[in-house]
Amino acid sequence: MAGMKLAILISGRGSNLQALIGAAAEPGYPAEICLVVSNRADAGGLKIAAAAGIDTAVIKTGDFDSRDDFDDALDARIRESGADMICLAGFMWLLGESFVHGWRDRLLNIHPSLLPAFKGLHVQAQAVEMGVRFSGCTVHFVRPELDDGPIIVQAVVPVLPGDDTETLSARILEQEHTIYPLAVRWIAEGRVRVSGERVLVEGGDPPEQTLISPAV
Amino acid sequence: MAGMKLAILISGRGSNLQALIGAAAEPGYPAEICLVVSNRADAGGLKIAAAAGIDTAVIKTGDFDSRDDFDDALDARIRESGADMICLAGFMWLLGESFVHGWRDRLLNIHPSLLPAFKGLHVQAQAVEMGVRFSGCTVHFVRPELDDGPIIVQAVVPVLPGDDTETLSARILEQEHTIYPLAVRWIAEGRVRVSGERVLVEGGDPPEQTLISPAV
Repeated sequence: MAGMKLAILISGRGSNLQALIGAAAEPGYPAEICLVVSNRADAGGLKIAAAAGIDTAVIKTGDFDSRDDFDDALDARIRESGADMICLAGFMWLLGESFVHGWRDRLLNIHPSLLPAFKGLHVQAQAVEMGVRFSGCTVHFVRPELDDGPIIVQAVVPVLPGDDTETLSARILEQEHTIYPLAVRWIAEGRVRVSGERVLVEGGDPPEQTLISPAV
Repeated sequence: MAGMKLAILISGRGSNLQALIGAAAEPGYPAEICLVVSNRADAGGLKIAAAAGIDTAVIKTGDFDSRDDFDDALDARIRESGADMICLAGFMWLLGESFVHGWRDRLLNIHPSLLPAFKGLHVQAQAVEMGVRFSGCTVHFVRPELDDGPIIVQAVVPVLPGDDTETLSARILEQEHTIYPLAVRWIAEGRVRVSGERVLVEGGDPPEQTLISPAV
């Protein structure tokens, strides 16, 4: 089958972009990346994409008179690329309602917490500061509110006693690089359905385990 | 050593009370229950406590002119019992600041979610409705705000595709019955320290595992 075409939106180094590029390069992966867009010209991910032979574009918010104008230009460029779905990968811009509705259930985000805990920015630091015993990451369909929307997959990691923001972020990031390509694969394989605002994944069996921390 | 003395506050069936009674009956468990107080005369946990030979008291909010008067009466009765620490176990009453400060770091609560996610009531239903992939429970020291305070221990459980509120609640409750006695044990053994608003448990090694759901 023809692969599902992805546009990936970044603002920075794009380590999740890299994970998706790696996944897409695997034989039989059911999606390919047709475009990478950054809202910052200096985003490290642009070079990564170019090196992988992927079309890139820079669309800067400052070049537009309004948020809507920016969103419209972004939308037009993505549609021109033939993308079927969009993955936000560290894209530091809150897309407007019109854009989000236009890509309903075809617009994904990854967030470095176990949503609904810790929305917004600097969430790994918040998790360390609060002393939660577990954190993780979430891939979800985007809705207009920040870090809101039907959850496709989550990963749990322990927070360790000596953790700082950096060590916890690294542990979470490793899982991000696993679950984002997983979520895209399932969607491209037609196994993901949004019912109400819940996501059903066909054949998606959760683990049986429970975890306790500290376990002593 | 003499065991740490616990007062347990309930409003209902008190299944966590039962778990604590069971733990306290084990040889070598470092805490004993000296009093069970309910704010409802018909709380099922009163019978369980009485059957286990534990002193009980009913102190009804409706019998007092103000919230403070109720809190003061409760405080007096608990202090009279010689309790060193208080465990809330399904106690449906928000204790006032003065009471909470008076028992700072000696007042525990258990909550059926992975705090800070899902504070308040009916949280298992919220978790099912939102379609989170993991939930769990949290034992924490109480602060004046609802379901807030330094986290001692958390347990993670998977949310399964067919779950309703009842099945998820049961899975979480099983973990509650494990982690509440654990937290009390660690405190009674002097291994728990509150630093900033984080809790350090001496020898408290978290699990190394990560969990992904769905895992497929």
